[in-house]
Amino acid sequence: MPNQAQLDAALAYADAHIEESLDRLRDLVAIKSISTDPAYNGEMLRAADWLVSDLTSEGFAASARKTPGHPVVIAHDTTGAGPHVVFYAHYDVQPVDPIELWNTDPFTVTAKPQPDGETHLVGRGTSDDKGQLLTFVEACRAWRATTGKLPIRVTIVSEGEEESGGKNLPGALEAAKAELGADIALICDTGLWTADTPAIVTMLRGLVGEELTITCASHDLHSGMYGNAARNPIQVLADIIASLRNPDGSVAVEGFYDDVAELPEEIAALWKRLPYDEKAFLGGAGLTTPAGEKGRSVLEQTRARPTCEINGITGGYTGDGFKTVIPAKASAKISFRLVSGMDPVKIRAAFRKHVTDRLPPDATASFAEHGGSPAVTVPHDGPLLRKAAAALTAEWGNETAIIGSGGSIPVAGDFKRILGLDTLLIGFARDDDRIHSPNEKYNLSSYHKGIRSWIRILAALAG
Amino acid sequence: MPNQAQLDAALAYADAHIEESLDRLRDLVAIKSISTDPAYNGEMLRAADWLVSDLTSEGFAASARKTPGHPVVIAHDTTGAGPHVVFYAHYDVQPVDPIELWNTDPFTVTAKPQPDGETHLVGRGTSDDKGQLLTFVEACRAWRATTGKLPIRVTIVSEGEEESGGKNLPGALEAAKAELGADIALICDTGLWTADTPAIVTMLRGLVGEELTITCASHDLHSGMYGNAARNPIQVLADIIASLRNPDGSVAVEGFYDDVAELPEEIAALWKRLPYDEKAFLGGAGLTTPAGEKGRSVLEQTRARPTCEINGITGGYTGDGFKTVIPAKASAKISFRLVSGMDPVKIRAAFRKHVTDRLPPDATASFAEHGGSPAVTVPHDGPLLRKAAAALTAEWGNETAIIGSGGSIPVAGDFKRILGLDTLLIGFARDDDRIHSPNEKYNLSSYHKGIRSWIRILAALAG
Repeated sequence: MPNQAQLDAALAYADAHIEESLDRLRDLVAIKSISTDPAYNGEMLRAADWLVSDLTSEGFAASARKTPGHPVVIAHDTTGAGPHVVFYAHYDVQPVDPIELWNTDPFTVTAKPQPDGETHLVGRGTSDDKGQLLTFVEACRAWRATTGKLPIRVTIVSEGEEESGGKNLPGALEAAKAELGADIALICDTGLWTADTPAIVTMLRGLVGEELTITCASHDLHSGMYGNAARNPIQVLADIIASLRNPDGSVAVEGFYDDVAELPEEIAALWKRLPYDEKAFLGGAGLTTPAGEKGRSVLEQTRARPTCEINGITGGYTGDGFKTVIPAKASAKISFRLVSGMDPVKIRAAFRKHVTDRLPPDATASFAEHGGSPAVTVPHDGPLLRKAAAALTAEWGNETAIIGSGGSIPVAGDFKRILGLDTLLIGFARDDDRIHSPNEKYNLSSYHKGIRSWIRILAALAG
Repeated sequence: MPNQAQLDAALAYADAHIEESLDRLRDLVAIKSISTDPAYNGEMLRAADWLVSDLTSEGFAASARKTPGHPVVIAHDTTGAGPHVVFYAHYDVQPVDPIELWNTDPFTVTAKPQPDGETHLVGRGTSDDKGQLLTFVEACRAWRATTGKLPIRVTIVSEGEEESGGKNLPGALEAAKAELGADIALICDTGLWTADTPAIVTMLRGLVGEELTITCASHDLHSGMYGNAARNPIQVLADIIASLRNPDGSVAVEGFYDDVAELPEEIAALWKRLPYDEKAFLGGAGLTTPAGEKGRSVLEQTRARPTCEINGITGGYTGDGFKTVIPAKASAKISFRLVSGMDPVKIRAAFRKHVTDRLPPDATASFAEHGGSPAVTVPHDGPLLRKAAAALTAEWGNETAIIGSGGSIPVAGDFKRILGLDTLLIGFARDDDRIHSPNEKYNLSSYHKGIRSWIRILAALAG
């Protein structure tokens, strides 16, 4: 285990070299690694190559592993002593549309000083997840630069399909299983609890993604000629979407809540004590009133309760002007967030039954599957978690929050299922980072103190 | 009034020169006059110029009149005797998307022989409305070629905004009012009753077009972070659209049916006698079951009852793959077809109240207006109508149907309001012409017998 002087030296190195660390973030953000759009397949390869090259230059044995989709980068430095951790973050990003709402080029990191003294690093992926990925990479660099080695054995796994279903990661983990025997996994794709309260996430919602297409007529019709008599698939789709929620805000799919586990009492009590400003959370998005289940706090609604959201809808004429058409079909992208106890297969089937039970004459439904994963719950009291929590508390000056996250990080489930590894989910994003949205940003303090946090955690886990 | 030999000569000329008539249709269809999309503004000018040039070469005094939008072409040959008619058809067309569903180039007229002996002329605008426009132009050509003049006084008005709201036609009619004093208007933008039964339309539904946008959050949100708690505008929009129809298929907007006039008994009785195959009409669109008001026939639903149709919807992520976003906004294009008695202003206001009454917290609605016109009813027993009906019966061998049309042709209302003219709506389209859809076609027989029909009508009106 490194001594205090070594830790201080590594931290001082990170402080002194923050500009070079930022340059590397700029380089990675500039690569347009949008995994869901095949137009960017070349950029995906470039991002993987950049990462291999950067990790190799730092001292890792790194390579890009082919998959049927985008490559998975795996890098080892396991020659030393101490526990073996598998660190995960993803190098792909979300699409940037609607591009017209960006104030600066999405692929150029733009530093914007703020009135509160913070600096925002604006750009697609600065927060989700390239910035977070590099906090760990740069922490390793600081240890190597000051002590010539890492305090523990480290493997880095970085995938390129987190934003597009992640279908090929499990296969890549299976293929590399022999290299990935470790003590614990670390995932950096989550956020701080508050601006100065670090967090370790122990509950993650699962996800079921569905694309529903309603088809009625054999071709688009003129609404003057057929209006009233012809079944309109947009109307049918709207009727079905409207039927997905009850008036009390709960999801109306039959059996949806059957297997939902309520929060353990100790966790529910802890969450009530945590600093949390519901009004500020909603207000940051321009909202005032929780929309989901009545009688559940925003914290519960977003982190401990399942949901159904319509993520996209399209049908008929959507260009400028007007076209009096009754389209042949209309479709929606619909996702369900699952909590502990819910079975993705069962929820998908219940949704499809909900739809087909409600089809009027002349309407047919087809479904496409976009990923499915159960919720993941990891132990919130293990010895490695306690060490990591203490290291975070030392860096941030506040007690680490042990919480749940509303997002879905299927890889945590894959690590458990395929590698038998529990996971510590540690990240430095803020609620207002606008991830998946125009003008995504990462605070410079998230990046800088994130690097310092991992420097401390690597030391602490060695102990 | 021309004698029978002159009529026969004009008809024979049209028969002998049908190939040249088709060449001119090919030329006009090749011009991509999509009025709703500003990208085609240059093509709109080309189409107007083509028409001016063609009409001038034939003997009309033709010019393109500037408007704040696309030009209106006006052509006169009023030096002769007899009644003065104002003929109207439009030279603009609908967009061609989804382009991938076309089997041939939309702007190349492709002749496709059919098993039943008919030939389809496939291309955007062959039926709606370039082919119909040229039936009249070519009829005039036949009269001039054989007798050196037209049997009656003729003015042609052709606009370029029929498919995109037609906002500038009324102004153009006002400006040219002194030239447009006439006995009656003829509009060619409707269809045959059956393959061999001609029709004169005396009732046209009106139209109210609305674009509704629902906005919730100030920016797109991550559905993992905000799902459940953040109001989802696609869900709100779907709830509102679902609320527009009652379970019995009627429109649920308050007061929607208050001013709806029932069909006069004699017309209702006539319609029951007309040959009409409800199953075949729906079957041609791949449908089996009327979707609108229960207890109303398809004929009533589509021609004598008002409706509400969703013509387009968009929101959130609609590209390939999946994006777990809660969008900031979602929008729909919604149209109402009106029948005699309904006030477009009142219906628009009722719709907007229906929406705003149903907005949940954190959702706002904004509206954009896309055209509004009342239904038009023209006398179905005037002397000119009787002459035209007899001429049509002579050409087609079946009694002319006096009917209503489901589509909206606001120009008929403009002619009445601005010029004081009643209108005879006569056209040769078929129900299966797929107007506004991929693979639009016009039967060669519609074109050829359409030309012959106008030759007969021009003679009959002179009597």
